[in-house]
Amino acid sequence: MTDTPKHTYRDANGDLWFRESLSAGIGNGLRIDKLLYAEASDVQDLIVFENNENGRVLAIDGLVQVSMADEFIYHEMVSHVPLLSHGAVKRVLIVGGGDGGAMREMLKHKGVESITLVEIDPDVIEFSKKWFPDVSQGSFDDPRVNVVIADGSKYVEETTDKFDLILINSSDPVGPSAVLFTREFYTACSKLLSDGGVIVTQSGLAAIHPEPVKSTADSFKSLFAHSGFYLICVPAFSGGFMALGFATNDGATFDRDIDTIRERFAALDIKTKYYSPEIHKGSFALPPYIAEKIA
Amino acid sequence: MTDTPKHTYRDANGDLWFRESLSAGIGNGLRIDKLLYAEASDVQDLIVFENNENGRVLAIDGLVQVSMADEFIYHEMVSHVPLLSHGAVKRVLIVGGGDGGAMREMLKHKGVESITLVEIDPDVIEFSKKWFPDVSQGSFDDPRVNVVIADGSKYVEETTDKFDLILINSSDPVGPSAVLFTREFYTACSKLLSDGGVIVTQSGLAAIHPEPVKSTADSFKSLFAHSGFYLICVPAFSGGFMALGFATNDGATFDRDIDTIRERFAALDIKTKYYSPEIHKGSFALPPYIAEKIA
Repeated sequence: MTDTPKHTYRDANGDLWFRESLSAGIGNGLRIDKLLYAEASDVQDLIVFENNENGRVLAIDGLVQVSMADEFIYHEMVSHVPLLSHGAVKRVLIVGGGDGGAMREMLKHKGVESITLVEIDPDVIEFSKKWFPDVSQGSFDDPRVNVVIADGSKYVEETTDKFDLILINSSDPVGPSAVLFTREFYTACSKLLSDGGVIVTQSGLAAIHPEPVKSTADSFKSLFAHSGFYLICVPAFSGGFMALGFATNDGATFDRDIDTIRERFAALDIKTKYYSPEIHKGSFALPPYIAEKIA
Repeated sequence: MTDTPKHTYRDANGDLWFRESLSAGIGNGLRIDKLLYAEASDVQDLIVFENNENGRVLAIDGLVQVSMADEFIYHEMVSHVPLLSHGAVKRVLIVGGGDGGAMREMLKHKGVESITLVEIDPDVIEFSKKWFPDVSQGSFDDPRVNVVIADGSKYVEETTDKFDLILINSSDPVGPSAVLFTREFYTACSKLLSDGGVIVTQSGLAAIHPEPVKSTADSFKSLFAHSGFYLICVPAFSGGFMALGFATNDGATFDRDIDTIRERFAALDIKTKYYSPEIHKGSFALPPYIAEKIA
């Protein structure tokens, strides 16, 4: 551990701050009220710290990956939206997502019989369990969970299993995650989907970084009968809406009517903080300036 | 003008940055690529600068008020949502809003016969015309516009005019704007509304600063038959959704069906960047964690 890790600075009061740069002229600061862990290697720079407003925060290579005050937004929305749209998901594949947050939400659905989580780096899982136990909340011990340590892009080329839902729970499209945004990868995923299955992706901050949304949109259009994006607004991420990709060959699943979603959500009988059937439907509306960047 | 105005700092490269603090442990930075104007008086600290990503930015007392890359989001949504929900607005009152952005959008509706803009400080208007001409785009010269220099809270107590739409275009509920968040003020506004008229408010960042939303919700419930909030997600504002209040005694206006909104929007025949009928309807869905803070 170093006293002043990368992507941090001290202000005039001597307080240590983490500084995120989404682009050269924008820098978002979170005060490091307690530095818990810092690691700087050739592969990545990683810090864990407490911030009074955001709770425990994980940042990798200068980008916030987990903020405990907000994590429910992403994890609820990548889970309940596809599961309630589809309605009968039994087998799930999660590529990435070693923190276990999406799994935690998906396991609340009793119909889910198995979740295969493919993570390239076993340390990510151990690290998440140690520093962010409230994200996975014991999901790794659920008998329905099958963890595979493998390169996600190789796994989807090689497996013969089929899935009703595939979640591409990638970080941003740089470094090892870049392959998870390619047409080749999406093509391989599409072949693993059962009839009417759904693929969901993390596609980044659509307003300020539209490129991954655009390339994912192009791939989806050539591979699926129905595809689009839905949006979430996360306080810890400046930069406006984060886009989540959604693709399927089943028209009813893609544009599931709200009455059915309400019935299914009521039957699920869980309390959510961000997700609701109305948010579910409303989140698929794209502001024209974002829709144009994708088209 | 001073070289290093308040709420700014120089980084290790010597670049000057503006730093916004929404709370003690969060600080958002915008690089000042060109400092255009800075004023520090006993009343307020104000700077205007260019940022490569956000365009021209106005910050007052350390808070971003206008960012040219984003201003369309707020101005479209405070205008087209109430105007298309109501459908027959002729007379508008705007309290605050001396930058002219909301007026610019409202004047696109041919049915709008008059806009009375009440601004406490004439310098705000002159300042906005000089530094942010692309916000008002000449709206102050429109013959339908009537500018009144007055304290908004006194104006609404004294005027005998009636309005179909009142927009409370306040800045945050501190300093001179605090009165614009009180029950007394909302009560006076409610008396100026024509039958079925609508009041819309800027109610702040609901997720991290729920107090103004809560107090506005309480006032609205006691004054109007129908009230609620709708949400916008603005890249230049970190902190998640900004809430806009919406209150009326007309149930059909409050929950206007989407087919009617689509028809009216098509008839309006304008190009919008954030607003769409689907965004309009979807924006009224509140994530449960925000709805609970208000209830």
